[in-house]
Amino acid sequence: MNVSAMAVDNGVNVEALMGAREALANAPEAARFRWRATCDWMHGTHSRATVSGFFGLGQEQQRKTEFRFDADHPEVFASEDRGATPVEYVLVGLGACLTAGIAAVAQHRKIQLRSVSATIEGDMDIQGILGMDGDIRNGFDGIKVKFRVDADASPDDIKALVAQSQKRSAVFDIVTNPTNITVEVA
Amino acid sequence: MNVSAMAVDNGVNVEALMGAREALANAPEAARFRWRATCDWMHGTHSRATVSGFFGLGQEQQRKTEFRFDADHPEVFASEDRGATPVEYVLVGLGACLTAGIAAVAQHRKIQLRSVSATIEGDMDIQGILGMDGDIRNGFDGIKVKFRVDADASPDDIKALVAQSQKRSAVFDIVTNPTNITVEVA
Repeated sequence: MNVSAMAVDNGVNVEALMGAREALANAPEAARFRWRATCDWMHGTHSRATVSGFFGLGQEQQRKTEFRFDADHPEVFASEDRGATPVEYVLVGLGACLTAGIAAVAQHRKIQLRSVSATIEGDMDIQGILGMDGDIRNGFDGIKVKFRVDADASPDDIKALVAQSQKRSAVFDIVTNPTNITVEVA
Repeated sequence: MNVSAMAVDNGVNVEALMGAREALANAPEAARFRWRATCDWMHGTHSRATVSGFFGLGQEQQRKTEFRFDADHPEVFASEDRGATPVEYVLVGLGACLTAGIAAVAQHRKIQLRSVSATIEGDMDIQGILGMDGDIRNGFDGIKVKFRVDADASPDDIKALVAQSQKRSAVFDIVTNPTNITVEVA
């Protein structure tokens, strides 16, 4: 019996996730989720978003808390900087997705994490959003993520851990592959 | 003189943005921006991100405020729901980007906005992130954005306004087109 392996606890309930996999294999329609945010314009480039309920496991799911997010443009764009910029929210989501994945995969692989931190950087030529040059895209030219992971594992095992998180990450997929967006005006 | 048109004020300093365009046309290297977030693992799938400085206009830019964001998975994934999910952060960024764009374009077109609100919904089959079926992607199948805009403009002008915001949106571009991400482990 490997006592140290049994004691691994990153706070992720892998057994529940494995149970969910089995349950969803028998009821794949329950795997259809719909995530939601609402956004209200405040003033200038400042808006406020709320995130609360979502649909999943065949029914509407309510949270105990409603999360609120202010977004704005910074002062160098003659705005009031009342929140992170929209593109920074994408970087936040990417970092969070990869980090949660690292914790989950580490738990599954019986690797005890001590700390995980990341820097997520997105390069952009703002001539794109300003409409100055049609050959310059609006979004990021590219994104660089740097992880520092302190864990009971070899450097190779840590690299494999991060690679597996990347492979299963929703936001990594959203940013690296195209997704169709329909915009309607009521 | 069109007094009502002159009185249009959505809180966006379009003159400054036009000035920036002119200045950047003469110094395109100043248009290179680098947006940043850092992310620290807390426990389980819970992480905390910070957004503060960024690089742009040829130098490091500091903000007065540091923005912090908690992210987590919800209770139906056996997590503690201590923040919005990573994919909801992407929806927040998308809604905020399109909304700021609507305010800016409306100002430029001398359309007075009274209110703008949006619902942003992303559909996902979680068999993807659970690794149950290689043909199901990790990210969204598709995203639907519904805007309600109350403004001094015809329905056609409002539709054109939203369409122009979409055309110049950084996050719309990031989600609908592929972006390269490099992940390194220190």
